[in-house]
Amino acid sequence: MIKIAVDAMGGDFAPEMIVAGACQAANDFDYEIILVGREAAIKRELHRHKVLGGKIFIHNANDVIGMDESPVAAIKSKKDASVTVCFDLLKKKEVDAVVTAGNTGAAVAAATLKVGLLSNVKRAGIAISLPTLKGLTLIIDVGANIDPKPEHLFQYAIMGDIFARSLHKKKRPTVSLLNIGEEETKGTEVLKETYKMLRESSLNFIGNVEGRDLFSGRSDIIICDGFVGNVLLKIVESIADTVREVMHRRISSNFLAKLGALCLRPVLADVKRDTDYTEAGGAPLLGIDGVVIISHGGSNDKAIRNAIKVAGSTVENDVNGLITRELSVLRPGSTAPAVEEE
Amino acid sequence: MIKIAVDAMGGDFAPEMIVAGACQAANDFDYEIILVGREAAIKRELHRHKVLGGKIFIHNANDVIGMDESPVAAIKSKKDASVTVCFDLLKKKEVDAVVTAGNTGAAVAAATLKVGLLSNVKRAGIAISLPTLKGLTLIIDVGANIDPKPEHLFQYAIMGDIFARSLHKKKRPTVSLLNIGEEETKGTEVLKETYKMLRESSLNFIGNVEGRDLFSGRSDIIICDGFVGNVLLKIVESIADTVREVMHRRISSNFLAKLGALCLRPVLADVKRDTDYTEAGGAPLLGIDGVVIISHGGSNDKAIRNAIKVAGSTVENDVNGLITRELSVLRPGSTAPAVEEE
Repeated sequence: MIKIAVDAMGGDFAPEMIVAGACQAANDFDYEIILVGREAAIKRELHRHKVLGGKIFIHNANDVIGMDESPVAAIKSKKDASVTVCFDLLKKKEVDAVVTAGNTGAAVAAATLKVGLLSNVKRAGIAISLPTLKGLTLIIDVGANIDPKPEHLFQYAIMGDIFARSLHKKKRPTVSLLNIGEEETKGTEVLKETYKMLRESSLNFIGNVEGRDLFSGRSDIIICDGFVGNVLLKIVESIADTVREVMHRRISSNFLAKLGALCLRPVLADVKRDTDYTEAGGAPLLGIDGVVIISHGGSNDKAIRNAIKVAGSTVENDVNGLITRELSVLRPGSTAPAVEEE
Repeated sequence: MIKIAVDAMGGDFAPEMIVAGACQAANDFDYEIILVGREAAIKRELHRHKVLGGKIFIHNANDVIGMDESPVAAIKSKKDASVTVCFDLLKKKEVDAVVTAGNTGAAVAAATLKVGLLSNVKRAGIAISLPTLKGLTLIIDVGANIDPKPEHLFQYAIMGDIFARSLHKKKRPTVSLLNIGEEETKGTEVLKETYKMLRESSLNFIGNVEGRDLFSGRSDIIICDGFVGNVLLKIVESIADTVREVMHRRISSNFLAKLGALCLRPVLADVKRDTDYTEAGGAPLLGIDGVVIISHGGSNDKAIRNAIKVAGSTVENDVNGLITRELSVLRPGSTAPAVEEE
């Protein structure tokens, strides 16, 4: 059975929501879940839920890394932090995957330092699945690598393609580069070089897209550096609240609008759910020699359940095996994208 | 009287909306407006409007630069294009300002090649005034300079501060750097260096902000490179349409929601207006030795009227004189931000 370590102490609503989500996942999927963290606190939460026998275990870890601690320093000093222990288990192959909603930087640091990269992968990248007007769009990287080389971005495209085929069940997903114009000559030198590599690859590359194409679903996979990706991710996160607040201000000054808002309430809830990428499951850290799913810090139980589902599916689909095989076709050190046709 | 050249042929709805907006501005403000473009086409449009005598003139220009032409090549080859002629007039000081809704790259190229930079300014930057939950936030740069040095970003902060004080009437506007975390150690080397320069300056620097702070109005001025700025601008532009489309899909499947939407229609129109930065007037290209206002390609008459208003106010407030004086305090070549206290 697939074994998934869940950082029970990571996230704004840990351990309550983490344990609740893990229990839902244990009942819904055929995975073994290891909750890592302070045993007493986890036990207290577990007593609130009914779980099928033999599906949930506790692995004690006494320390916790806070959301604003310096990632590398914390990982090196806090040997018994829940997230550190999760990655120790992954390194020792005692689990197949890690799910954490804690400090993202700490998760990336622990994954890189303790578990390391897949063979031939130069850099890990965080991918999110953004709901758009035409299904999910995978955006990679949203924060692991803020100063990537063309080869890193090219590898993100390869890894994203495999993930979108395996998890989003897209046959031949379209791949694009986030840029400031559609022409090949646009953007930084890094992007121009990446454009050439993608064009010559066997990926379904459709060229550059712009910020306005994010929500249109025009591209199944959008490649960007971790700086731009992180900025856009945080803009996206704030949109729902901003729209709600702007509408609220207008509505509260108008009776007819209040009535309208009342009628629309269920729709607005639907809209929020439609556009909330955090509920779609966590973000895979692709390129690590083990499955790593990073959940939003504000994850609720449903988000954690879905992140565990994504972790399990990523293992089941052997995404990492596919990445290793696909990248091994590229000669080491070569930037020529000699990826095989499917 | 302040003289403003308006590119009558630039924009998706030129010359109709440009001429209509210019006529509104001529009646509302005490500026002389020179419409630059094909005389016959402009005259045809002018006949539809009543304008106070002696406020609007035509300067003939036979050519037009399209939205997708290569900027520098087009400016160099099309000597008689409306936008080229606008900047010729600005260079010869026959006008105080230029307003164009045409090809942004062409406007930046023409401004830089023909008019040139203000003394001590290293690079021009495009600023937009984004409506937020707490008034306007000035974001600079949104596309003129995609690979800025720390000194460029620092100068954007100086110029943005002067613009926000003059046009947004903010006494001591807060300035921040768009980054991927609040800590000083976050981000690229360019941003870390810029952070130091801003911290040591006399600007009201509040540190780094993240994508989620864009709409909160937490900072009066946000500094970023032109790549990130352009991506975020285009995301922002697409939000209103995306929200409308998502709601529409949900609403059309639910009777009560349809009723609610009907009641809410005026509010939604208000919300759209509240969040539409294009109506707030155009974006100044700061750093050019003359006032340049770039309007959105899709500008309607109101947007053009407001852009002309911004152009006039920028001249009236002597924003360029203030920029020159403020930057002259910095020793040439020095990166030490020895800006005087107000």
